Amino acid sequence: MSGTITEKIIEAHLVEGETEPGEEIAIEIDQTLTQDATGTMVMLELESMAVDEVRTELSAQYVDHNLIQEDNKNPDDHLFLKSACQKWGVWYSPAGNGVSHPVHQERFGIPGKTLLGSDSHTPAAGAMGMLAIGSGGLDIAMAMAGEPYHVEMPEVWGVELEGELPDWCSAKDVILEMLRRHDVDGGVGRVIEYHGPGLDSLTAMDRHVIANMGTELGATSTVFPADEAVRDFLSQQEREEDFSELRADDDAEYHVTEHIDLSAIEPMIAKPSSPGNVVPVTEVAGEGLYQGYIGSSANPGLRDFAVPAMIAENHRVPPEVSFDVNPTSRQMLQNLTAEGYLTMLYASGARVHQAGCNGCIGMGQAPASGRNSLRTVPRNFPGRTGTREDSVFLCSPETAIASALAGEITDPRTLEDTHDMSYPDWEEPEEIIVDDSALSPPPENPGGDLEKGPNVKSLPEFETVPDAISGPVLMKVGDDISTDEIMPAGSEVLPYRSNIPKISEWVFDQVEQEFYKRAEDAGAPWLVVGGSNYGQGSSREHAALAPYHLGMRAALAVSYARIHWQNLVNFGIVPLEFADRDDYEAIEQGDELELPDVREEMREGTEVTVRNTTRDTEFTAEHSLSPRQVDVVLQGGLIEEYKN
Amino acid sequence: MSGTITEKIIEAHLVEGETEPGEEIAIEIDQTLTQDATGTMVMLELESMAVDEVRTELSAQYVDHNLIQEDNKNPDDHLFLKSACQKWGVWYSPAGNGVSHPVHQERFGIPGKTLLGSDSHTPAAGAMGMLAIGSGGLDIAMAMAGEPYHVEMPEVWGVELEGELPDWCSAKDVILEMLRRHDVDGGVGRVIEYHGPGLDSLTAMDRHVIANMGTELGATSTVFPADEAVRDFLSQQEREEDFSELRADDDAEYHVTEHIDLSAIEPMIAKPSSPGNVVPVTEVAGEGLYQGYIGSSANPGLRDFAVPAMIAENHRVPPEVSFDVNPTSRQMLQNLTAEGYLTMLYASGARVHQAGCNGCIGMGQAPASGRNSLRTVPRNFPGRTGTREDSVFLCSPETAIASALAGEITDPRTLEDTHDMSYPDWEEPEEIIVDDSALSPPPENPGGDLEKGPNVKSLPEFETVPDAISGPVLMKVGDDISTDEIMPAGSEVLPYRSNIPKISEWVFDQVEQEFYKRAEDAGAPWLVVGGSNYGQGSSREHAALAPYHLGMRAALAVSYARIHWQNLVNFGIVPLEFADRDDYEAIEQGDELELPDVREEMREGTEVTVRNTTRDTEFTAEHSLSPRQVDVVLQGGLIEEYKN
Repeated sequence: MSGTITEKIIEAHLVEGETEPGEEIAIEIDQTLTQDATGTMVMLELESMAVDEVRTELSAQYVDHNLIQEDNKNPDDHLFLKSACQKWGVWYSPAGNGVSHPVHQERFGIPGKTLLGSDSHTPAAGAMGMLAIGSGGLDIAMAMAGEPYHVEMPEVWGVELEGELPDWCSAKDVILEMLRRHDVDGGVGRVIEYHGPGLDSLTAMDRHVIANMGTELGATSTVFPADEAVRDFLSQQEREEDFSELRADDDAEYHVTEHIDLSAIEPMIAKPSSPGNVVPVTEVAGEGLYQGYIGSSANPGLRDFAVPAMIAENHRVPPEVSFDVNPTSRQMLQNLTAEGYLTMLYASGARVHQAGCNGCIGMGQAPASGRNSLRTVPRNFPGRTGTREDSVFLCSPETAIASALAGEITDPRTLEDTHDMSYPDWEEPEEIIVDDSALSPPPENPGGDLEKGPNVKSLPEFETVPDAISGPVLMKVGDDISTDEIMPAGSEVLPYRSNIPKISEWVFDQVEQEFYKRAEDAGAPWLVVGGSNYGQGSSREHAALAPYHLGMRAALAVSYARIHWQNLVNFGIVPLEFADRDDYEAIEQGDELELPDVREEMREGTEVTVRNTTRDTEFTAEHSLSPRQVDVVLQGGLIEEYKN
Repeated sequence: MSGTITEKIIEAHLVEGETEPGEEIAIEIDQTLTQDATGTMVMLELESMAVDEVRTELSAQYVDHNLIQEDNKNPDDHLFLKSACQKWGVWYSPAGNGVSHPVHQERFGIPGKTLLGSDSHTPAAGAMGMLAIGSGGLDIAMAMAGEPYHVEMPEVWGVELEGELPDWCSAKDVILEMLRRHDVDGGVGRVIEYHGPGLDSLTAMDRHVIANMGTELGATSTVFPADEAVRDFLSQQEREEDFSELRADDDAEYHVTEHIDLSAIEPMIAKPSSPGNVVPVTEVAGEGLYQGYIGSSANPGLRDFAVPAMIAENHRVPPEVSFDVNPTSRQMLQNLTAEGYLTMLYASGARVHQAGCNGCIGMGQAPASGRNSLRTVPRNFPGRTGTREDSVFLCSPETAIASALAGEITDPRTLEDTHDMSYPDWEEPEEIIVDDSALSPPPENPGGDLEKGPNVKSLPEFETVPDAISGPVLMKVGDDISTDEIMPAGSEVLPYRSNIPKISEWVFDQVEQEFYKRAEDAGAPWLVVGGSNYGQGSSREHAALAPYHLGMRAALAVSYARIHWQNLVNFGIVPLEFADRDDYEAIEQGDELELPDVREEMREGTEVTVRNTTRDTEFTAEHSLSPRQVDVVLQGGLIEEYKN
């Protein structure tokens, strides 16, 4: 035991495995978080698993992504989620109540607990001394059903903070400095743990900013101690009874170490189009501006709105700049109106939107073609705003408002001269309006029916893998095929994520338009043949679920990307590998394949016989599944395995 | 002269014609109003017309419709409109500044003036003693260029108001009572002019509610006197110098008369899916509720938000109800926050959206499938929310908030018992925050370049009609073909309304998928053959412009719907009529037609020779254009005629 907070929490929740970095461990999950864009599938998985009630200490479902409601699909999903919360005993946070991560921290964060969430920014709750991890939907469903979570034991990366941030700098500049140093893969396989005297000047919501964007470093999670700042936060939220101290030992040992002098931080900015593309603001100052944007889970604190409001007071954004304000939650809106900050923002020319994720996940507020947008959001991947070839910069609220007022990218420190302004004297109030009246608690006796609009469809039934599989190679693809090619995203497709039959119409559509018609004509079972690194990219489960729905029952590839390979297993599709690339080359799309003894062969070893009846040839393929995974896939996937 | 306000304004602006109901007159236009959804085309028309500067006293461009910004198209349009305002000398109201009709009334409304707007609810400004009329885009462009507006001289419908509204009733209930009595066509060919002692208790913004929805009665416009209420309004808006009294003569004569006793009004509601489907709220009380919705140009006054806020204070909307608040303008948001009303709304559970039209024109906030939505908006046509088979009721803000609080459709009067509440004691404040700092005035020296994003394309060039036209009948359709079939609307198509080449891909798509490819292959000129009532429905100009772009140069129909027939003339397509329906029957799609002497024959009379060279037949068609219209179409339409 090395004495880090990370290991203390893991040890307290360990169910299986050794806490040796790189080894698979299984930990108990205390809390889960789902948002609406991923939550509908989680709830459909719970339905398929025939779960009667959630087994976590607390599960919470937030509606914060799909808030536009251009037609019935979004609101139908919301009603479905509410009924699911009643059925299984889950807290429900309705549309407009706020962004999941800060609301969860405010209402449910408890030091020392584990949290698993179907959103990549779930680690934000690490600000509270929790171990909070983002994962795929089925992992969350399993955790809600009481199953432990399997994860690689991380290294612990100790980052020591000292000093205090200068005026015009804030927490966002700290995490941008980390990204400047280590880029978007610097945290892979690690939990980042902050410590040192510099913590004293960072509130729990400041730490949320840093923990949230640890995800952009590729980290498994980020952890802060539960200290006086966390006690103050819980006290402000009228939950001081949930506080308990949790600190690293004085002699804690970290696998990797880092040091940041906060007093040396200056305003930083991530240029288009990667969060790792960070430079000091001075390097890009003077570039034109279409949009200044504040809000999102990466800058959700009261101060992240109040400080820009105080800077903007008695000034006006020029008419050619769109100044978009995305409030964190209904509770925060009540505080912002009560303290007059919202009036200042309106008077400065702000467009204030409803509380939610909004433009951060491409739901509106897209910038004009070829124009710069400065945002306090966590990510600026290309096109994420909805505008092709967008030009998005990531920065602090101070830099966003300074630039919006100036009409060009501006180092906020220059406002002292140009606007004869000193840095606002902000202090987090001890007391605020606390209002969780919009949150629906789980019922005392969970139950009732799921409310499914026309766009919400149950998952397919998953079949046991038969003794033999024979069918055509309906699709043969080359190397490095991504899950975007198997199952695309985008605003046309995403509204159907709770509707597998409908979303299946886009399977392989990027490779062959209307492939699904051929698949429907063929019927189950059919196979896919792929090259190396089959299924790279996004972790989306639909890239396995939708082909399964159309009848795919086995894949033969030169090699697989890890997560998609796991998803195939989880959803009952047999993933085999060519032992010899020549066997891959010898197969043509349309060939009829037979796996005459697949079930028995997989149980007994790693080799599986494949006959090409079209060409009258035979070869041996392999699989690299663990015995547990063989058991899962032969039963028809993880949901069936859970039910049995 | 009969002494009505309507006739006084018309007489003061008359350029051509006799003020005899039904006769065409031409009047001078003082002001124009355009919104973004129609304004981009108006600006492209000004470009085609090579106008150097607007000739009106005042023209204003509002951005209030396309505010979602899912990609670059909306924001690119906004930048285009701003550059157009600079080029031609137009006021620019940016996204988030508010809904056109109330903002126009507040900032620019002047008694006695004429206003022409490319939005059907333009008559709302009649609340100020203006004559305000909604029309198609090219009419607005012509007015901006200084041309008079041609319209049928209306009848004047005098509606006498007496008494005072009871508690829990407001202006919306008055116009709903008018709709209950006269349905959606009761006002056709008329201007509705309110008078009588009942006016004393209605503020200028109350009158806006009634004038706005006069459009739903089919009226040409609605007019109120400019009296003390208008003076008070202008004084509150810090524009008292713009006031002048304008009243009907005591012995004014109305063509039609009506009487309403305000004290006998009760809360009214329009059931799905027509504004004319009105009953007392008591008849539908108790029905379930998904959504309560306040805001829009039909209930835009400060009181329309303050009164619901006061009713909602210390109460909470149940979590299953979506309570959507759509503020009128940035100025109103400043007043609502300053007076604490916004805090009350947030605390009651409201989702407060940015200022704009929003859900009223199907831009978000769609209700769930099969659920009831109560809205203060002007219209509930089927599917207008974005949800197919939606169920939208129109009502007052009082009824909307009472129902949202109760979770079912509720007569607001019952709150006295159920919530132990008396009707809020509201009085319009004499002074408010007035902030028009977001409005950009026209430059002193208009000019500069238009800023066109990739989605903004200039209009096609329009050609002089040649001596002879010969080409194929590329499309033959039956009777009653609507402009929706010629050029559909919907969220997929609408973003392309400033891009004729792109939007042309949907021409006749409802009749024959990908018709445009056949049209592109054929090239100009080609013809359409239609049955009776060709081009009924929406007045959209694109149903002429887009086929013109694809090469359509003449139509032959049994008969035409009036507005589309006018649009064909305006955009240079020759509209001929079959003298004998047998000639229509004898033509097949694909036949080659020749109009060997069309130019000369149209100039000289009403008969035009048509040869079917495929079938070797010949017949005589007719046209019913006035000499002025013949002149217009032969020059290639109104834009070419203006330029010549």
